[in-house]
Amino acid sequence: MSLIIALPRERRSGERRVALDPSRVERLQQSGQQVRIEAQCGHLASFYDESYQDVTVMGSFADVVREADIVVKVVCPTLDEIALLQPHTVLVCIMSAFQHLEEVEALRERQITVLGMDHLPRTTRAQPMDALSSQATVAGYKAALLAAELSPRLFPMLTTAAGTIRPSRVLVIGAGVAGLQAIATSRRLGAQVEAYDIRKAAKEQIESLGARMIDTGVEVEGAGGVARALRKDEKQLQHDVLAEHLARAHVVICAAALPGRRAPRIITKDMVNGMLPESVIVDMAASSGGNCELTRIGEHYYYNDTLIAGPLNLPSHGAVHASEMYARNVHNMLQLIIVDNEVVLNPEDEIIARCVLMHAGSINHPNIASLLKTE
Amino acid sequence: MSLIIALPRERRSGERRVALDPSRVERLQQSGQQVRIEAQCGHLASFYDESYQDVTVMGSFADVVREADIVVKVVCPTLDEIALLQPHTVLVCIMSAFQHLEEVEALRERQITVLGMDHLPRTTRAQPMDALSSQATVAGYKAALLAAELSPRLFPMLTTAAGTIRPSRVLVIGAGVAGLQAIATSRRLGAQVEAYDIRKAAKEQIESLGARMIDTGVEVEGAGGVARALRKDEKQLQHDVLAEHLARAHVVICAAALPGRRAPRIITKDMVNGMLPESVIVDMAASSGGNCELTRIGEHYYYNDTLIAGPLNLPSHGAVHASEMYARNVHNMLQLIIVDNEVVLNPEDEIIARCVLMHAGSINHPNIASLLKTE
Repeated sequence: MSLIIALPRERRSGERRVALDPSRVERLQQSGQQVRIEAQCGHLASFYDESYQDVTVMGSFADVVREADIVVKVVCPTLDEIALLQPHTVLVCIMSAFQHLEEVEALRERQITVLGMDHLPRTTRAQPMDALSSQATVAGYKAALLAAELSPRLFPMLTTAAGTIRPSRVLVIGAGVAGLQAIATSRRLGAQVEAYDIRKAAKEQIESLGARMIDTGVEVEGAGGVARALRKDEKQLQHDVLAEHLARAHVVICAAALPGRRAPRIITKDMVNGMLPESVIVDMAASSGGNCELTRIGEHYYYNDTLIAGPLNLPSHGAVHASEMYARNVHNMLQLIIVDNEVVLNPEDEIIARCVLMHAGSINHPNIASLLKTE
Repeated sequence: MSLIIALPRERRSGERRVALDPSRVERLQQSGQQVRIEAQCGHLASFYDESYQDVTVMGSFADVVREADIVVKVVCPTLDEIALLQPHTVLVCIMSAFQHLEEVEALRERQITVLGMDHLPRTTRAQPMDALSSQATVAGYKAALLAAELSPRLFPMLTTAAGTIRPSRVLVIGAGVAGLQAIATSRRLGAQVEAYDIRKAAKEQIESLGARMIDTGVEVEGAGGVARALRKDEKQLQHDVLAEHLARAHVVICAAALPGRRAPRIITKDMVNGMLPESVIVDMAASSGGNCELTRIGEHYYYNDTLIAGPLNLPSHGAVHASEMYARNVHNMLQLIIVDNEVVLNPEDEIIARCVLMHAGSINHPNIASLLKTE
C-alpha cells in the first residue's frame, strides 16, 4: 500500500509558493507514493498542472486532502482549511506557530499531526530540511534587491565620462542566513557593506563576504547559536554605536530575527532622524514586529526623508526558487518519516522530536504549549 | 559682470532629478557666476537648499528665472513655465523635442535659445557633456534591478543545503549605453546573460562584460554608430532567431532606442506567447513606444504568465547619482559656452552647432524643424 500525499494550492494572500515542485513529486512517485495535487497549486511558482506528471489533479482543497495520509503545504492552513482535514492526517508546513495560535488550537482539536518545517534543530543532519534557512536565503536576496531598487543611489562604483560615482554604503543588521545573503547580494552589486550582529561568531562570515563587522562592544551568544535579548545597558551601547553608523549609511537592511519570538527593536526613531536624506531602510523583520520602531507592516512610506519599507513574505517574491528549495526540504523530511510506505515518527530521532509540534490532540512543543496556556 | 544662472525645481510628474548639485554650483560660483535656485529644487535628489551654499533661494519658478541669463533644467519646461521665461534667455535641458513639439514651438515663439543636452555629437570631446549616456547608465542599472526584483527566480547560482539553484537566463536587447549597463548589472548579480544588437561593433563590448552575443545574421551599422531601421526580410530573420532565445529566457530587458525617433518594435505578441511561465520583460523603451508591442506605458501587468513592465523615467529612480552625473554634463557645457562672463555660442564648434536647437526665433535643428513643418 502506498501513501497518499496531497499538495494543495496555497490560499493565503500574497503567497505564491508551492510545497512540492514537479521534480520532487516525480521522486516521491518513484519511491512508491501516490501524489494528488489541487488544480493550479504551482501556477504562481511557474509550475503548471501539466508539468506534474502522472498525478491526480483535484478541483478543490477538500477533494485533495480527503483521503490523504500526508498533506504538504508551505504555510499554515487557514481555519477553513483545517476544518476540512481528516483527523490523524500528517500536516507538513512552516507553522509560524506564534503568529497562528488560533490555527494551532484548531489543528490540535482536530487531532492533526503537525510537522513544523520551521522547527529543525541546527545540526548538520537537519540542514537539508531546514526551511527557515532556505527561505531566508531567498528573503535576504530579495531584501537587498528591494533596497537597491528603492534607493536613488547606485550601489556600484562607476567610472563614466560624467565622473566617478562612489559606491553606496549599505548597513546590514543581523547576520543570520538572511542577513548574510543580503550582504552577499549588496556586495555583488558593488556596495560598501558594514554589518552588525551581536553574535561574535558572525564576524568571520561577514568578513568572508567582503563586508566590515561593526563592533559595538556588545557580544552575546545565546543557546544554539541564536541571539538572546539584550539588557538595558547593552541596548544603550548598541544604540549609540549603531546610530553613528546609521548616520552615514545610504541603505539599511534589517535582518535580526529571534525565531519564534518578536523581532528585537534595534533602530529607534531618533536614529532614523539622524539618517541621510533619501536613505532607505528595508526591514525584513516587519512581519514579526520590525527591527525598526517606525516600520509599518507591508508598507513603504517616507518618514521625513527616509524611505522605510516593511515587506511581507519576501520568499514569495522569489517563488520559483523558493519553492524548489522548500520542496527539497519537504522531500528530505518525507524520506525521513516514510519507512516502508508508512509514516513512522520515531521520538528518539532529534529531528522528529523537535518538528512534531502536535500529535493525537496534544501539543508536544513546550513553547507552543505555553503560548496556548494548555500547561 | 557675472552671469545669472537659474536652477528651477523640476515640476513634471515623477521627476526627482535636479540639473545642478551643490558641488557644481560651488564651481560655477568660483568661476564668477551667480546662481539662483528655486526652493526645494534638489530636495528629491537628496540635496537640501542649505547644501547649496551662498546662493539666492527664490520662492517660485517665475522669481528664479526672471533675471536669469541661463536657465538650467533636467527636462523640457512645461508650457506654463515657458510663458514665464524672458526672451533671449539661454535654456539648457534634455529637450526630447520629438515628444514635446508644443513646447518646442512655444520656446521658439518666445525667442528662447535652447541648448539640447540630448543632442551631443558622438565624439570624445563631447562625451563629458553627453547627458543621454550618463542618464542611460542609470536607466540601464535600474532596469536590471527592476527585472531582478520582479522576477520570481534568483539571478545568481546558489549552492545551499537545499540544493543548487541555477542562474537565471537574462536576455538584453540593444547594447547601447543603457543595454550595456543592464548587462553589467545582471552579470554582477550572477545571471547568465545573452545580448542582441544589430550593430556588429557591439559584440566586443557585450563579450567584455561576460555576456554572449546573439547572432541573427542581421547586421546593420547606421550613421554615427546608431542603429538604422530594418528592412522587412531582415525583421523576419531577426524575429525568428530572437523568438528562439526568448523562449528560453527568464528575464528580457529591452534597451533598443533610436535617438529622437520611435523605438523599434522588436518583440511581437507571438514571441511573448512562446515565453516561459513567470518570465519578466522590462521595456526601457516604453516612453518612446516600446520595443515590445505589448508594453503599456508606465504599467506593470501580466500578459498570460509573463509580467511586462514599461517603466517611465528610470533615471529618476536613481535621482541622486543621475543628478550628479547630469550636473557634471551641464557644468561642462556651461564651461564651453561661457567665455569671459558672457554666453558665446560659436557656430564653428561642432558641439554648439549640434546642441543649439533654436535661437532668436528660428529652429536650427533640421529634424526638429521638419517635425514642426516650419520649413
